[in-house]
Amino acid sequence: MRNDGWVTLDPGFLTTAQCESKITYIDGQHSILRYRGYPIEQLCENSDFLEVAWLLRHGELPSRAEYEQFCADINHKTMVGEDFRTFMGSFPRSAHPMSVLASAINALATFYPDTTDISDTDQLDEAAKIIMAKARTIVSYIFRRRRDEPMLYPDYARGYVDDFLRMCFAVPYEPFESDPLYVHALGRLLIIHAITSRTARPRWCVSPVPPTPICIRRWPLASMPCPDRLHGGANEAVLRQLKAIRDSGKSVAEFVTDAKENGQKISGLGHRVYKSYDPRAAIAKKYLEKIMEREDTQNCRPTSVRCSMWPPSLRILR
Amino acid sequence: MRNDGWVTLDPGFLTTAQCESKITYIDGQHSILRYRGYPIEQLCENSDFLEVAWLLRHGELPSRAEYEQFCADINHKTMVGEDFRTFMGSFPRSAHPMSVLASAINALATFYPDTTDISDTDQLDEAAKIIMAKARTIVSYIFRRRRDEPMLYPDYARGYVDDFLRMCFAVPYEPFESDPLYVHALGRLLIIHAITSRTARPRWCVSPVPPTPICIRRWPLASMPCPDRLHGGANEAVLRQLKAIRDSGKSVAEFVTDAKENGQKISGLGHRVYKSYDPRAAIAKKYLEKIMEREDTQNCRPTSVRCSMWPPSLRILR
Amino acid sequence: MRNDGWVTLDPGFLTTAQCESKITYIDGQHSILRYRGYPIEQLCENSDFLEVAWLLRHGELPSRAEYEQFCADINHKTMVGEDFRTFMGSFPRSAHPMSVLASAINALATFYPDTTDISDTDQLDEAAKIIMAKARTIVSYIFRRRRDEPMLYPDYARGYVDDFLRMCFAVPYEPFESDPLYVHALGRLLIIHAITSRTARPRWCVSPVPPTPICIRRWPLASMPCPDRLHGGANEAVLRQLKAIRDSGKSVAEFVTDAKENGQKISGLGHRVYKSYDPRAAIAKKYLEKIMEREDTQNCRPTSVRCSMWPPSLRILR
Amino acid sequence: MRNDGWVTLDPGFLTTAQCESKITYIDGQHSILRYRGYPIEQLCENSDFLEVAWLLRHGELPSRAEYEQFCADINHKTMVGEDFRTFMGSFPRSAHPMSVLASAINALATFYPDTTDISDTDQLDEAAKIIMAKARTIVSYIFRRRRDEPMLYPDYARGYVDDFLRMCFAVPYEPFESDPLYVHALGRLLIIHAITSRTARPRWCVSPVPPTPICIRRWPLASMPCPDRLHGGANEAVLRQLKAIRDSGKSVAEFVTDAKENGQKISGLGHRVYKSYDPRAAIAKKYLEKIMEREDTQNCRPTSVRCSMWPPSLRILR
Amino acid sequence: MRNDGWVTLDPGFLTTAQCESKITYIDGQHSILRYRGYPIEQLCENSDFLEVAWLLRHGELPSRAEYEQFCADINHKTMVGEDFRTFMGSFPRSAHPMSVLASAINALATFYPDTTDISDTDQLDEAAKIIMAKARTIVSYIFRRRRDEPMLYPDYARGYVDDFLRMCFAVPYEPFESDPLYVHALGRLLIIHAITSRTARPRWCVSPVPPTPICIRRWPLASMPCPDRLHGGANEAVLRQLKAIRDSGKSVAEFVTDAKENGQKISGLGHRVYKSYDPRAAIAKKYLEKIMEREDTQNCRPTSVRCSMWPPSLRILR
Amino acid sequence: MRNDGWVTLDPGFLTTAQCESKITYIDGQHSILRYRGYPIEQLCENSDFLEVAWLLRHGELPSRAEYEQFCADINHKTMVGEDFRTFMGSFPRSAHPMSVLASAINALATFYPDTTDISDTDQLDEAAKIIMAKARTIVSYIFRRRRDEPMLYPDYARGYVDDFLRMCFAVPYEPFESDPLYVHALGRLLIIHAITSRTARPRWCVSPVPPTPICIRRWPLASMPCPDRLHGGANEAVLRQLKAIRDSGKSVAEFVTDAKENGQKISGLGHRVYKSYDPRAAIAKKYLEKIMEREDTQNCRPTSVRCSMWPPSLRILR
Repeated sequence: MRNDGWVTLDPGFLTTAQCESKITYIDGQHSILRYRGYPIEQLCENSDFLEVAWLLRHGELPSRAEYEQFCADINHKTMVGEDFRTFMGSFPRSAHPMSVLASAINALATFYPDTTDISDTDQLDEAAKIIMAKARTIVSYIFRRRRDEPMLYPDYARGYVDDFLRMCFAVPYEPFESDPLYVHALGRLLIIHAITSRTARPRWCVSPVPPTPICIRRWPLASMPCPDRLHGGANEAVLRQLKAIRDSGKSVAEFVTDAKENGQKISGLGHRVYKSYDPRAAIAKKYLEKIMEREDTQNCRPTSVRCSMWPPSLRILR
Repeated sequence: MRNDGWVTLDPGFLTTAQCESKITYIDGQHSILRYRGYPIEQLCENSDFLEVAWLLRHGELPSRAEYEQFCADINHKTMVGEDFRTFMGSFPRSAHPMSVLASAINALATFYPDTTDISDTDQLDEAAKIIMAKARTIVSYIFRRRRDEPMLYPDYARGYVDDFLRMCFAVPYEPFESDPLYVHALGRLLIIHAITSRTARPRWCVSPVPPTPICIRRWPLASMPCPDRLHGGANEAVLRQLKAIRDSGKSVAEFVTDAKENGQKISGLGHRVYKSYDPRAAIAKKYLEKIMEREDTQNCRPTSVRCSMWPPSLRILR
Repeated sequence: MRNDGWVTLDPGFLTTAQCESKITYIDGQHSILRYRGYPIEQLCENSDFLEVAWLLRHGELPSRAEYEQFCADINHKTMVGEDFRTFMGSFPRSAHPMSVLASAINALATFYPDTTDISDTDQLDEAAKIIMAKARTIVSYIFRRRRDEPMLYPDYARGYVDDFLRMCFAVPYEPFESDPLYVHALGRLLIIHAITSRTARPRWCVSPVPPTPICIRRWPLASMPCPDRLHGGANEAVLRQLKAIRDSGKSVAEFVTDAKENGQKISGLGHRVYKSYDPRAAIAKKYLEKIMEREDTQNCRPTSVRCSMWPPSLRILR
Repeated sequence: MRNDGWVTLDPGFLTTAQCESKITYIDGQHSILRYRGYPIEQLCENSDFLEVAWLLRHGELPSRAEYEQFCADINHKTMVGEDFRTFMGSFPRSAHPMSVLASAINALATFYPDTTDISDTDQLDEAAKIIMAKARTIVSYIFRRRRDEPMLYPDYARGYVDDFLRMCFAVPYEPFESDPLYVHALGRLLIIHAITSRTARPRWCVSPVPPTPICIRRWPLASMPCPDRLHGGANEAVLRQLKAIRDSGKSVAEFVTDAKENGQKISGLGHRVYKSYDPRAAIAKKYLEKIMEREDTQNCRPTSVRCSMWPPSLRILR
Repeated sequence: MRNDGWVTLDPGFLTTAQCESKITYIDGQHSILRYRGYPIEQLCENSDFLEVAWLLRHGELPSRAEYEQFCADINHKTMVGEDFRTFMGSFPRSAHPMSVLASAINALATFYPDTTDISDTDQLDEAAKIIMAKARTIVSYIFRRRRDEPMLYPDYARGYVDDFLRMCFAVPYEPFESDPLYVHALGRLLIIHAITSRTARPRWCVSPVPPTPICIRRWPLASMPCPDRLHGGANEAVLRQLKAIRDSGKSVAEFVTDAKENGQKISGLGHRVYKSYDPRAAIAKKYLEKIMEREDTQNCRPTSVRCSMWPPSLRILR
Repeated sequence: MRNDGWVTLDPGFLTTAQCESKITYIDGQHSILRYRGYPIEQLCENSDFLEVAWLLRHGELPSRAEYEQFCADINHKTMVGEDFRTFMGSFPRSAHPMSVLASAINALATFYPDTTDISDTDQLDEAAKIIMAKARTIVSYIFRRRRDEPMLYPDYARGYVDDFLRMCFAVPYEPFESDPLYVHALGRLLIIHAITSRTARPRWCVSPVPPTPICIRRWPLASMPCPDRLHGGANEAVLRQLKAIRDSGKSVAEFVTDAKENGQKISGLGHRVYKSYDPRAAIAKKYLEKIMEREDTQNCRPTSVRCSMWPPSLRILR
């Protein structure tokens, strides 16, 4: 491809890969998605989120020792001090969660100034770990603040997803046990969203070559579900649509049919780059079915109070 | 260009235009840069920064009434309330200015939640105005905080650049008059940096067509000088190099010669997309010469105290 | 009236005066309202709000010296320090203004603990002055915060109403001149609302006899327009109705007719205790007509920006 | 009773019931006090405070399921988030506790704006629950702040009174067991003060008819022990008198005799509406005797440190 | 003097000079006090406080250029930023002013970390200037906070004492003119208290030899009037005594006579090291007489409001 | 010793004891240090830090009951409330720990105003206890803040040193056991530093006679390791030297030899008042050897994570 002073036009980034294919391979025709050569299905089967993050960064799956050190590192960086707590409290109470998340992730660079030179591999690694660790703290802070609950500090002894759920849902003075099925399912969701075909997100965790330095500080923002629709982006559109289905009193089939007839858009069913089906949607569906099946069998939820804490998207489809 | 499920690889965005050529035209071979068809030299001669911003957004230069309304809008949005002041004070005192700026610009979405639906043209316009207005308040806050001075509120009656200088440099109880030459020069710098060839920055202010919504919230971050070198990016690299020249005791020519011999990089002299010279550098140089000439003639600076407030890059080359 | 262990039932306080008739005299049949024996019309003609406040408290109009001392006292108590500013900033940004006002007035007792013994006449006087003075500061803080503007400090040299308008509407670095007609009109509104037939409000400023101590701390709350309708009370109902008239595109006459036919309530046209007309409404109407007449004649408003700052109720009827 | 434009004078509210006798029945001649038809003695014997609160609101005692749901609702609303904690910390340290309580209860409306339309039964219920729940948090915050101890969060698994004591007196890292006798006694005190003959307090929790909307926002204030005497009202007067008895070195009988001879007032011995005795005082006395008897028998207090935490009124009479 | 492992006992520091006599010379028998060889009377006649400070530090009076640079340096360091303002607001409202001053002066080292190496002469000079400059800001902040007034920022164009008075007493929106006599008198008080015979205060500003480094951080504390009596030290004792004289209704002579007869101590009449009279008291008395004389002649005080702002000690003796 | 108006010159306080020898006895020739007559070696053998503190204050070792009451008092005063936490958070994040400590200890007087009259023995005792108790809280706050960890509250059931270690190093949700050897060793270090030959520190805790009142408020400052060298004083100099030894790759012997040859100073090896050896250094050395010996034997450290939390001085010498 020539570089003759003229530039290629690619509105929407639909045809431009942001980085070297060493990391991601997408074959939309055959619904194939690979990270560093590993099919996404295989990673979801055998690995957890932190292993996949390591894979994306280093090109290889971690050894046992590397993995344990990586988990310990991430866990210990989850803690925040008094100052960051004060900072989080200075956002307006009614702010959109995604806006707070975007600003807070950026603010990490102000609290950890020794991680801003991304041409230094150690600093880049440190920054990546800080972001992966604190994202849980920030999100759970936002979540709890909206429910007028104080933040909870991390428990270093728990797993990445398990402790995230605890920090979101636990209650002072009550022991908290995450449902292993939910822990596993949420772990899969994190894996399949680790790299998306659309955003510039993955670039930082990729290659040691020139593109890398382009910007860890751009990364945090890009990695948020891009708010390109009314009030919050594709993820919010899906949640709103689920709520609309519930409120409509229609079956899902009826709702979809009516929407098509009225020319309304159906959100959240895979990316258009995949021609047959989105392999990530297939994985998500599998875990959703497991959850629904388990819930049907048991037909008992711990208590209505705790259950009401689950996001509407999980409850609504049951 | 086909969209067949495979994507183009373009490391570093060197060959990919982020948006429709309706906005920018770059002919690197002949050092031509046009915004919406107007040569950059012509805009610098006849327009000010707010006119150019309007041009980029609307495709045409504003009428007198449109321009005045636009200026008034921007000016009135410059004010911040007690809450944002508290928020700004919650960053660590020693944080890197660019990190604070990145987080604060993102935080605007939390203070103005009605501007986050960028598929709504009015909200997009509002967001653009808020960012253009508050950027001055935020930068001057950061600048003054580092010097242990309280923030100053905007004076609606002043021009965009003039009041920015006042908010940075004025002192309580003393009248402040900006030097018109500095006001003019800084205005040119803003114009030539309004769109850069490298970042994804300009995209938001462009076209009413689908690519637009991609992200105002990505914009703010991208628009900051990308910190891709040690401690803060290309802009900081230039400042550090200027300081190195001063501290070296060498002439600029000697410094450059020595740097080349030692294989050191010279920062800040134009973008490599331009094969002969960077038309923006030519403009910047012209105003720098005016400033130096004036200073030589006058050979008097108001007082050493006030003079020491100017950024080192301006003082060092004199 | 006997006090035999049984109590009188008076739902809504419609028939129970909260205090001795020495202060207010209401003859609903003949639309007569007197404060301390002075007809309300006469007070509006010849006195200002602070004189009337003095009259209600002391039973006589103040001498020239008393009046001037009273004004100076009130003015100097208008100032708030850094601590109260911090306190005001700790309310949620999106809180209803009336809720903030209620809590802030109550909080005054925490900042001025030497004014809480209301059996001490001096403390009662002091408390009354503090409340009258700070109410302006609090309301203007709330008003400006909603517009993201910093609070303004009082200017001791201005009149009670004049400086209240300045604290609400002025802009840093711009001189502010209140329109004398608005100052006068707002002064009348304060007088006619100084005592209302319905709330327990006036009791504090009344008699030196036993009922007095009942509670200055109840007073502040009661004195707020009682939020007895959806989102904020009778005053808000009126504002919403005015907006509804404007949005309906109907004339006021058409709107009222339609509302009656639909069984909708018309808000804000006087209290039902008055059988012929509410004398306070007559006064308010007179000043409204003056404002409308003046505006018609001049047909020029300073600038659209400043004009848009006036409350919708004043603009909508023009 | 006629409503002819003239109003009834009732200084001190001595003869005016604020609301329909459906709720309270007071026969001062025979020392009878009934809530919703139930004698106060019976309620103290068989019910707890939350049952009585439900009774007052709904007219009937709750079913088992209603009661448990009500308790769970109250408990979960006891939690406060970071924002309210910041707000509580913005009061002056040395403020009178009752002043802080008054302002904080009012401020709840700013944190829970969806509860301010009291014409909406659901919002009214929600507001009532919030106030009942948070009152414990607020009071324990104030109490602990005065002793330089951090606030404690609620433990959802404990009872209303039990957890209130824990939030006041517990110490980090030490298990806390409330004394059941104290829990029971304090529960009785809450019941007998749930409605008082004097203040306008109970109105909110009463009838679905027009008087209701008059004001939940007036309620909170009114419900506080009315500070109508030097430094804080009748409750404080009693505490001060107890202290005076202790400091006088006299027996209670001597103290009372001397006070009568000197024309001093004895505080806290029942309301004058009761001609023979105040039935509430009888109940309070009964529990006081139980506590004194138990203490005599045991003659051991846990540790002097913890014991010193009890309010002086309980300790002084032993 | 030998240094043999045994140390000299000097309770109360009564006989131990803290530093080399190059700086201070005290001859108590003949009431002589010299700074750097200059009699205190001569310095009060011909120099101002900043000149004397320079003299103490450098051993010689400053040249015109040195003096002007020193004044400008001090003035510009008077400003404080948002962070220090926040810090000052975090002290309890009711704290003793001297306690706040002690802590705030110490805290300067946290805000200006580059001034803590006192073995570096430049840092020592910088620290000394910062303390001299900020002391005015801190004291005026404390003073205004107690009167619920917001802090005022310095006006670089005014003199050291003049602007200190303005920062304490001025009112927003009103021009402020210090009374030149008061400015002069307060300047003399600062000079005669620049070094005291008792505290370790002067040591820092003295000699370039070993004793110097002992501690600038001890200096700030020591330099505060040592609170060695009930509630705040010798200075507070004097103020309380003045108040006692006023409240006693006695003449000063009667008060002193009575105090002596009752064995009460008279505070504030010079230090016991001076056997005949304290030369500093002679100077203070002279300016007091000037003030009293002027006030008698004029017999008019600007306004009673402003006058009431003067410290009681000045008003009481008139 | 005469007090004839002339004073003794003692630069550096080398020969002047600040107080009566009843408290400390130093015989530098024979390396003898006694507190209240007890050899320091004996106190380290048989007593803990709080016993020694009592001894210094009262002249006798405490009885069992006195000791237990003293421990309980200190422990309960260790707690800080929300206000002090806010205050601690208002220092700049990057401030030097010693500067924060100095300011915070001074600020205690603002939070506990009833302890500032040091002529009152009870207040003096109270102040001493508060400082001894809170010093642990303040230091652990500073330590944790630098590591972005929230503060931990005290556990009243633990010992003085044990809980200090826990407050510094514990992690939420993990049980914490201090190593008894470290607890003991740190206890010895506190004892030998309780009085130093150089600072004015001990004076407060000494005699009931006149010298006492000189100043508890000077004490706190003086008691901090005096920052008389580059960046933080003698204690920091030692830490920096230990780090230099580690980084040099030399043995300690080599390092010392080289330093002597280069004329560099060796820090931290005892005070020059001791002619043979510093008895305190002997004690410190003994415990250091115990620690090193134990570590060698075990050759296992709990986990590298926790171990890395120990101060470098302990780890570096192993």
